[in-house]
Amino acid sequence: MTQSRNRQFVLTEIPKGKLGLEHFVLQESAMPQPDDGEVLIKVRYISIDPANRAWMQGKTYRDAVKAGDIMAGYALGDVVQSRHPKFKRGDLVSGDCGWQENAVRPGEQLQKLRSMEPVTHLMSVYGITGLTAYFGLLEIGTPQPDETLVISAAAGAVGSVAGQIGKIKGCRVVGITGSDEKCAWLTSDLGFDAAINYKKQDLHTALRQACPDGIDIYFDNVGGDILEAVLFQTKMHGRIICCGMVSGYDGELPANGPRGIPGLLVVNRITMRGFIVMDFLEKFGQALKPLADWVATGRIQVKEDVIDGLENTPKALIGLLHGENYGKRMVKVS
Amino acid sequence: MTQSRNRQFVLTEIPKGKLGLEHFVLQESAMPQPDDGEVLIKVRYISIDPANRAWMQGKTYRDAVKAGDIMAGYALGDVVQSRHPKFKRGDLVSGDCGWQENAVRPGEQLQKLRSMEPVTHLMSVYGITGLTAYFGLLEIGTPQPDETLVISAAAGAVGSVAGQIGKIKGCRVVGITGSDEKCAWLTSDLGFDAAINYKKQDLHTALRQACPDGIDIYFDNVGGDILEAVLFQTKMHGRIICCGMVSGYDGELPANGPRGIPGLLVVNRITMRGFIVMDFLEKFGQALKPLADWVATGRIQVKEDVIDGLENTPKALIGLLHGENYGKRMVKVS
Repeated sequence: MTQSRNRQFVLTEIPKGKLGLEHFVLQESAMPQPDDGEVLIKVRYISIDPANRAWMQGKTYRDAVKAGDIMAGYALGDVVQSRHPKFKRGDLVSGDCGWQENAVRPGEQLQKLRSMEPVTHLMSVYGITGLTAYFGLLEIGTPQPDETLVISAAAGAVGSVAGQIGKIKGCRVVGITGSDEKCAWLTSDLGFDAAINYKKQDLHTALRQACPDGIDIYFDNVGGDILEAVLFQTKMHGRIICCGMVSGYDGELPANGPRGIPGLLVVNRITMRGFIVMDFLEKFGQALKPLADWVATGRIQVKEDVIDGLENTPKALIGLLHGENYGKRMVKVS
Repeated sequence: MTQSRNRQFVLTEIPKGKLGLEHFVLQESAMPQPDDGEVLIKVRYISIDPANRAWMQGKTYRDAVKAGDIMAGYALGDVVQSRHPKFKRGDLVSGDCGWQENAVRPGEQLQKLRSMEPVTHLMSVYGITGLTAYFGLLEIGTPQPDETLVISAAAGAVGSVAGQIGKIKGCRVVGITGSDEKCAWLTSDLGFDAAINYKKQDLHTALRQACPDGIDIYFDNVGGDILEAVLFQTKMHGRIICCGMVSGYDGELPANGPRGIPGLLVVNRITMRGFIVMDFLEKFGQALKPLADWVATGRIQVKEDVIDGLENTPKALIGLLHGENYGKRMVKVS
């Protein structure tokens, strides 16, 4: 039963303001065929990440997505046909397959994965976002017992895992998120010590209350005003983990950076360090064992938010940028 | 021949805009007398530093200087009378003696120094500014051969030493400064590879020309627009040494920080780290030997800018904030 057509989303234009459904079109093309060194993949899950929107703004750690491109996106799928010696039919692989049902990729750009149940965990806690939380917090944040750790986008895929690892490491963990329901989830289900709804509370006051001794570590997923507010309450020798800045992705790039830079960095000897998870590629193996132990013993609760159907992929990303998701959002394609 | 009166400068009001002579008054008071645990010092040199102005803006790594205070300032002097067991008459000491001829300080807040010729080197290359250049560049910048190092306020006390250490470590060194004469001095006398006059040249263009392969390390003494311009040309895994932000000291605190934070930190995995030299106090001893070797062999040229007379101290600071000085500025009091 060979599929002959391939459905895929094209980004028709680069959004000037907020991303909308009108920026995508679903098209059908012929099934792609692998050349030498390439692999044909049937996509099972597409990862939905804030960074997808940032790619439309220009070159980042990867080339920009341009108008007319098949929308880029990290995905998990099965090898259907391989013309690369490292892969064979039936292998489970991940890579940037884009928003489509079937993709041809160079073998060098794919990772072979060992299957597990549920396979979605390869996209969440054992995937890019879980590893981002792990390496960002432990390698850059270097948390010590009794330190105060603040996390923004705390109910998201990275933040929810980073906060739970912070608790395991003995930190006081304070999450910043965008609804009372998410605040309640963070404190009652995930064990955060406090949570702040930045849409309702005055952030400066709420941070002072939640972090009476100041902030030692800030896991920053949002940038902008929240970064600035946290910076002004960061303590001597504080560490700011620069993981992303979703506040700036869905629109024009921000005209200004946070006040207090570099002044407060000097006065309080603060370190800010940006990273992407691939910087720690050689250590991925070391992370998977502790993560698996923490999941097995319930110390990390894995929250996944699976949207069904390729046709819903644009809506899934737009909703993510509006803060709909709890934990790791992905689209089930097949 | 005992002096009976003590001349000193009081900061009469906190400047709202630029610092001027009208913010100081020279007064005479009785000679101070040490209590138990205190030491009377006859001041020889007062250090003039951009940070002096920052202390008027509020609490930093030290308490703010307030209206009515004797102006604070680091100084070098001789012990005249000691009621502290660690010090005796004739000892050479340094500490925050303030802008005055004679000071009483608690012994715990003084450092005993071994005399040398010229003694002014204890205020420049072997003092706070030389050590700031040394530890900032080597510990935070971690320069590697053939990396490109950019330094702002490059003709100043810290910048001029940091640049020469950068050359010793094999870097391509580019200085940013405020006059063509200083640019010429940096390249012809100090061996910088290039220099940029930020008051005349377009900084973005000039940086691209001077750093065609991008910037690996930025020793930031100024913050503001120059930090922003450098940030946009900083390479993957770049390091920004946050040492000061003189652009923001002489007036209101800046309303905004540099654009590109945290976005560029993430994309290019840049580290920004603030420090003050006292963070490396325990390693001071290790730095003095290489610094002395480099001075002895002419690999570091020590430039000092000595203003004569306590009465000229306000003018010396105001001039420094306007970029008058080459190298380390200090006031000779006695």
